[in-house]
Amino acid sequence: MGLDGPAEGNPFVEVKLTAVFRLGTREVVVDGFYDGGGKYKVRFMPDAVGTWSYRTSCNVKALEGLEGSFAATAALAGSHGPVRVANVHHFAYADGTAFYPFGTTCYAWVHQSEALQEQTLRTLKAAPFNKLRMCVFPKSYEYNHNEPPFYPFPRDAAGKSDFSRFNPEFFAHIEKRIGDLRELGIEADLILFHPYDRWGYATMTAEEDDRYLRYVLARMSAYRNIWWSMANEFDLMKAKTAGDFDRMFQTVEKQDPYGHLRSIHYSLVMYDNGHPWVTHGSMQSAKFEAAPTYLADWKKPVMFDEVLYEGNLNRRWGNLSGDEMARRFWLGVMAGCYVTHGETMLDPDAAMDENATPTLWWSHGGVLRGTSPGQIGFLRKLVEETGTGHVRPGLEAQEKAYYMNARVYSRDGKDAERVLYYFDDHQPIWYEFPLPKGTFTAEAIDPLAMTVSPVPGTFSGKAKIRLAGRPFRGMMFRAVG
Amino acid sequence: MGLDGPAEGNPFVEVKLTAVFRLGTREVVVDGFYDGGGKYKVRFMPDAVGTWSYRTSCNVKALEGLEGSFAATAALAGSHGPVRVANVHHFAYADGTAFYPFGTTCYAWVHQSEALQEQTLRTLKAAPFNKLRMCVFPKSYEYNHNEPPFYPFPRDAAGKSDFSRFNPEFFAHIEKRIGDLRELGIEADLILFHPYDRWGYATMTAEEDDRYLRYVLARMSAYRNIWWSMANEFDLMKAKTAGDFDRMFQTVEKQDPYGHLRSIHYSLVMYDNGHPWVTHGSMQSAKFEAAPTYLADWKKPVMFDEVLYEGNLNRRWGNLSGDEMARRFWLGVMAGCYVTHGETMLDPDAAMDENATPTLWWSHGGVLRGTSPGQIGFLRKLVEETGTGHVRPGLEAQEKAYYMNARVYSRDGKDAERVLYYFDDHQPIWYEFPLPKGTFTAEAIDPLAMTVSPVPGTFSGKAKIRLAGRPFRGMMFRAVG
Repeated sequence: MGLDGPAEGNPFVEVKLTAVFRLGTREVVVDGFYDGGGKYKVRFMPDAVGTWSYRTSCNVKALEGLEGSFAATAALAGSHGPVRVANVHHFAYADGTAFYPFGTTCYAWVHQSEALQEQTLRTLKAAPFNKLRMCVFPKSYEYNHNEPPFYPFPRDAAGKSDFSRFNPEFFAHIEKRIGDLRELGIEADLILFHPYDRWGYATMTAEEDDRYLRYVLARMSAYRNIWWSMANEFDLMKAKTAGDFDRMFQTVEKQDPYGHLRSIHYSLVMYDNGHPWVTHGSMQSAKFEAAPTYLADWKKPVMFDEVLYEGNLNRRWGNLSGDEMARRFWLGVMAGCYVTHGETMLDPDAAMDENATPTLWWSHGGVLRGTSPGQIGFLRKLVEETGTGHVRPGLEAQEKAYYMNARVYSRDGKDAERVLYYFDDHQPIWYEFPLPKGTFTAEAIDPLAMTVSPVPGTFSGKAKIRLAGRPFRGMMFRAVG
Repeated sequence: MGLDGPAEGNPFVEVKLTAVFRLGTREVVVDGFYDGGGKYKVRFMPDAVGTWSYRTSCNVKALEGLEGSFAATAALAGSHGPVRVANVHHFAYADGTAFYPFGTTCYAWVHQSEALQEQTLRTLKAAPFNKLRMCVFPKSYEYNHNEPPFYPFPRDAAGKSDFSRFNPEFFAHIEKRIGDLRELGIEADLILFHPYDRWGYATMTAEEDDRYLRYVLARMSAYRNIWWSMANEFDLMKAKTAGDFDRMFQTVEKQDPYGHLRSIHYSLVMYDNGHPWVTHGSMQSAKFEAAPTYLADWKKPVMFDEVLYEGNLNRRWGNLSGDEMARRFWLGVMAGCYVTHGETMLDPDAAMDENATPTLWWSHGGVLRGTSPGQIGFLRKLVEETGTGHVRPGLEAQEKAYYMNARVYSRDGKDAERVLYYFDDHQPIWYEFPLPKGTFTAEAIDPLAMTVSPVPGTFSGKAKIRLAGRPFRGMMFRAVG
């Protein structure tokens, strides 16, 4: 709701506005925020159908004790609510629909030209990704030298920021983009801090950090597709300690009325993901062999959010082949985890041009030039085809067939409905699959050619099946009858 | 030299024969051995040109104090002497010629039919391998159920071995095969113990083990192409401790007059390769990222002797693709180490036959069916082309360009003569190569297609070169002028 209030002084600091929303015995307290020009807003995301009432509280009389009510109707088709942790190591929307993250990365896409942002959205519409890692603050780094169209804080003529005030236009712009992603069914994994900075956003005081966090939370928590990533490479932010992030994590946990997902990404030194305010691991690593330890220790989902990028840069982190990028998705999924894509692919025609300012998907958005998205989409389809019911990927076959990678998918903890095998660089010419209880059909999967070839017959118990004897193949079993 | 002596009693235990060989002020003491039928032998490998004299010592009068002399002439062309550790982490023949191990594995080839052994030799003649891992004792394991043509110890009608005597025919047969390998320029990495046993050879007493070792050493140390591998998977030999292997290592060190290379291979628990009697690491692992630690700690060469096998078995250890096997050679070489091949490839036409007794290169020898040997030979040629002089692979570029793999080869510690880069699964579209001092030509390497394509021009300093933007490529720089 939009409210009118004082514009004088510094309303960002001086006006304390909250509202309580009630449905039956339930109460949800929400922060309001100043949106500039004497306008105040309170945003609320109801999680139940019914007539909600509200009442504001404020230290300014004009905004105190405003009351009203509204009817929350059933969610529209295709709207499943925010994503939560489900079954310890996995995710589901609030309505129970399984969510398998297949994310990508466009760190600074909202800080590019409008035309480029629109191109990014068109690309995303045709891409297989359902989560996007993106930064609130603009980015200063290799290949990232442009000034953003908006700044988060007002600046004087010399470019000095006034960290005691916000620029509502900046935040409204990001919100528009989060809304655009929501329309595409994409979760916004919003990175609140990062070290790639030349404007001073990485070196604000604790008071300024906390005010910034509360402002972002008041504005954006009501977006159902938002996730909070406390930082990218938090350990490279030399002005902050892990203790600072402990405090800020707790601020986010306390001020977000909806409990959106919370994680933190590191460079070399991992944050302690065992802290209760961390909902899932956000790894910069491709050590999938460590996944069983992470899963067992943290009892949380683990997302390999940075496994190097598909690309052709002269940087180790930015020149994986497309096949290797897609393979890392398979390895992550087979390890019971989730993986995030990124692409740093120079246009080959301009790759040697010293004066070029390349547009790289990883940070700017734009177009995808690599080959992995097709293969990633193929895997996503295989994983998602167990339906929209609440699906639990099991570990049974992984334990039994420890020397090959397998994932068992079963609905609501019942018998296995799907078993997915991946042989990576192994190429057995036959394999005796130790199937869970039940009868299954089998389909030979070629992740590189993206083909599914039915194997004649049905299978149960130990199923000895002739294979292609080629590496990087899979097998899908489906329960029948 | 062959000598006549007593045949009665148990000469293997009762007769103690040694000989001292002298050249100028040098003395080498060598054990003789009983070869059956009243025949005794003393074998000696001179390491210097000149007239050597000798004198026997024995507790049997007929063999005591026998004297003589012989002229040791210059080595024949192509004969470089035994292989030694050279420049801390590398190998060279006694004459200083660099030796880059590119080994393979035929554990039980000498225990197969004569026809199969001959086929193995024909295959080796055309293959790129210059080291062979092979067992003294026959093998009892999956796919290994045949009885050997010869047994190392006399057996009674019930198959019980008399471990106090040897079967000279068994050892003479192995010696013949070691000689055959020598003719092919192949080092015999002879495995003295292993756990794959149904005859009792893995559970002899310490006294029996030591007598066996001394007998093998007396017989075979004079073969210039022999290496001692104390065991395969020593930690799976439940009747022995690491302490037993300490003792046996020291026996080998003491009784081998020529100091042939000594290593030990493990399954899960590594032997302490820091012991002074271990000349080099023999790893069952493909963790090439651990190589810098091993090299720095042990200050010895490190050989990745078992990195899984190229094949198509339904076993994780036996179904790598050929490309992946060859890639592991590149990774090992780039890590400053050496790698050993193995192949467990079922004939595809008979792969599902439950009654087949497949012939697998890894243990039986026979033919190679895989695709890696060609690629391995291509790499060997690149590495060896620095010539037959004493070559020192340097670490300089590896340190400078830590995010990509490079090896610098320089003769006698002088300026770099070759720099070899490998990009593994990275695919930069250009790269700025930080070259060592000097001027170089460049050649783009495609390890999969096995092609070398000259890059026009010469290069020095930081050489920015356009690349293919495809994974699994390399670049070779050669010093010019």
